[in-house]
Amino acid sequence: MVDTTAVKLPHVLIVGGGFAGLAAARALSRAPVRITLIDRANHHTFQPLLYQVATAGLAPSDITVPIRWRLRSQRNVTVLMAEVREVRPREREVLLDDGATVAYDYLIVATGARHAYFGHDDWEAYAPGLKSIDDALSMRQRFLVAFERAERTLNPDKRRALLTFVIVGAGPTGVELAGSIPDIAKRAFVRDFRNIDTRTTRVILVEAGPRILSTFPLDLSAAAQRDLEKLGVEVRLGTPVTNIDADSVTIGAERVPTHTVFWAAGNVASPLGKMLNAETDRAGRVHVAADCSVSAHPEIFVVGDLCTITRADGRPVPAVAPTANQTGAHAARVIRAELAGNPRPAFAYFHKGDLATIGRHKAVAAFGRVHVSGYFTWFLWLFVHLMYLVGFRNRATVLIQWAYAYVTYQRGVRLIFDRNRLTQTGDRR
Amino acid sequence: MVDTTAVKLPHVLIVGGGFAGLAAARALSRAPVRITLIDRANHHTFQPLLYQVATAGLAPSDITVPIRWRLRSQRNVTVLMAEVREVRPREREVLLDDGATVAYDYLIVATGARHAYFGHDDWEAYAPGLKSIDDALSMRQRFLVAFERAERTLNPDKRRALLTFVIVGAGPTGVELAGSIPDIAKRAFVRDFRNIDTRTTRVILVEAGPRILSTFPLDLSAAAQRDLEKLGVEVRLGTPVTNIDADSVTIGAERVPTHTVFWAAGNVASPLGKMLNAETDRAGRVHVAADCSVSAHPEIFVVGDLCTITRADGRPVPAVAPTANQTGAHAARVIRAELAGNPRPAFAYFHKGDLATIGRHKAVAAFGRVHVSGYFTWFLWLFVHLMYLVGFRNRATVLIQWAYAYVTYQRGVRLIFDRNRLTQTGDRR
Repeated sequence: MVDTTAVKLPHVLIVGGGFAGLAAARALSRAPVRITLIDRANHHTFQPLLYQVATAGLAPSDITVPIRWRLRSQRNVTVLMAEVREVRPREREVLLDDGATVAYDYLIVATGARHAYFGHDDWEAYAPGLKSIDDALSMRQRFLVAFERAERTLNPDKRRALLTFVIVGAGPTGVELAGSIPDIAKRAFVRDFRNIDTRTTRVILVEAGPRILSTFPLDLSAAAQRDLEKLGVEVRLGTPVTNIDADSVTIGAERVPTHTVFWAAGNVASPLGKMLNAETDRAGRVHVAADCSVSAHPEIFVVGDLCTITRADGRPVPAVAPTANQTGAHAARVIRAELAGNPRPAFAYFHKGDLATIGRHKAVAAFGRVHVSGYFTWFLWLFVHLMYLVGFRNRATVLIQWAYAYVTYQRGVRLIFDRNRLTQTGDRR
Repeated sequence: MVDTTAVKLPHVLIVGGGFAGLAAARALSRAPVRITLIDRANHHTFQPLLYQVATAGLAPSDITVPIRWRLRSQRNVTVLMAEVREVRPREREVLLDDGATVAYDYLIVATGARHAYFGHDDWEAYAPGLKSIDDALSMRQRFLVAFERAERTLNPDKRRALLTFVIVGAGPTGVELAGSIPDIAKRAFVRDFRNIDTRTTRVILVEAGPRILSTFPLDLSAAAQRDLEKLGVEVRLGTPVTNIDADSVTIGAERVPTHTVFWAAGNVASPLGKMLNAETDRAGRVHVAADCSVSAHPEIFVVGDLCTITRADGRPVPAVAPTANQTGAHAARVIRAELAGNPRPAFAYFHKGDLATIGRHKAVAAFGRVHVSGYFTWFLWLFVHLMYLVGFRNRATVLIQWAYAYVTYQRGVRLIFDRNRLTQTGDRR
């Protein structure tokens, strides 16, 4: 491992290069510290657009940047591609995948969450979730292969099942996934196949709760549901999924034959959260103090999706990108204050609003009491997402892909690779 | 399988969606035939730019198009994503991966070649070749991971080995790979790492023969070698590689410690060539008649890299993209002639020239007796490659990536995914 003891500045170790980890690193750029940022991937992923990689609209490289490239000008940061296996709060060190340890003076844990199957881990093989580029590629693979298999089969029931897509969970990811499939099937793919009519594609969005986009205001949930239904998406509310296997998903008591299920229903926090001698909630998220630190260890901060904080009015802070940015930056602020001999500031959450897009040119948004939906909101969605994308090159290529898709109705990234995955879903006929 | 017996038009089955297969399909667009094109991938790959995917300059989707999208307007073609396991010339049918058979009246085999290790198949695990997008991603993974591992190690010998890249084989692919690495290491990556100086990267190009680009005119081989050496590439001529393992490559008698070897040294033809009751050469390529058909089976054509044809002057036709296009189109021409009751025309090869690029803005080219090299030739190379890329979107995105790379020296696609591959090369320290 890299020798980090030579220099005498305090060593801040950040684990995770998502929104929260990057925000923490950048907010320490002028602080008198040495920083090491560790991530098991070499890239930062812009998660809000992962669903567009999953549906062949954007390339993985459009929504990622190498973490070390992002931080190349910040000379007090060293980036390491490695996996942290264990946190040892008492020894103030972490253990890496290769057996090396890294000591810290401050630790910022920003390893986020994975999708969770609520005790049905066997469902993962049939219903991939969407947290990383690997996940998105696995989803894209299944999405594109389903049409290829439908084109090959002579069995009409099989064909119908292959052209049925079920999305489980109607948060923003599930809604955005469901909303993008109808246009692809009914426009982009329609002239490419000879044996199937892709316009017969069924999209079912299943939600166990009483409404879609449950964290959004009521009227926007209703507007988004109307928009989805206009696109032909079947929205099933108040019905949990009770089984998933290679050939079907069972919604309540109804068995729907399908070979393609996407999971957007739940999260479980990174296992590192359990190693911090701190209280965690049912999803494994760490309860942090007002300064984002862990009570037993003021030198350990937990930020982003891995932490849970309560707002002044008692409601929990939502697990969204702005929260990750704000908590990450706050941990840095606390460290800076402490090194300057000042008291630790408390975290104050600023809610930027709720925003989700539905299909080709609809979106819903809530900013405080202002609720908007429709075409103009979609432009806003587009602008906000482009603005927050890291890197000029990414902004340029995403804008071109979107313009191309908008004008031609085509999807630019219909690429099936890693052919071994073709057989993962079982029978190919 | 799809029922192709219903319509009475002759059925032309094309296996392979590379340059040759696509050219054959397109040249039959107005012929009175039904066409089925089968490929195990869903996409056509622009192989001449694969090396840029391998070195993180282009995204896979920049140089690929879905085959069915390319042929969407040609209503007499059905595209199937499937793998042909067996050709049965006597039964006039092929066997697919799922056990189905497809009958044909004419068969055009265009399944090309794979890289070959001359009896050292165990080398493949350490030295991937470059024929498909999967190959290119595997190479890119190793290329990027080598720098990540070098940044992590404290052992100077290990670091040196990790920053040594060996390319075996100095045809156009080997030369273009070798020529692109120095600029990446010395410019793009230099500010991103803290523990290593990427300018110390070594690139060794090994060629068993007496010169690089052996199919090019002598003076251009020499010019290309000078250009490579100016970039810092060590060119080793007349020395075969005698061993490759996880930690080293042995060049003649010298053992060079390295963890990253790229294979560009030899090809073996697709195994389908052996199933056609036809004579094959040592590399498994099928000797075809003057009309590109197999003597025992005039209804079977072999085109592209899988066939070998002799020119009027006795020299073999080179295995390059224009040959694939020309032989594919010729098979179609023969079928059209026969269906019109005309005699079968003979294939006449037109040599378009030789063209290879070296590094950031050098290239060599030969058109008949005109031999050129240098900056202007690089522009020509750029123009030719953009022109032959399929699809407006690809041309636009490739041009943007190149402009971006040219101005900033950066590589846009530094993305390591499929993390499981990280450990393939053994020890990660």
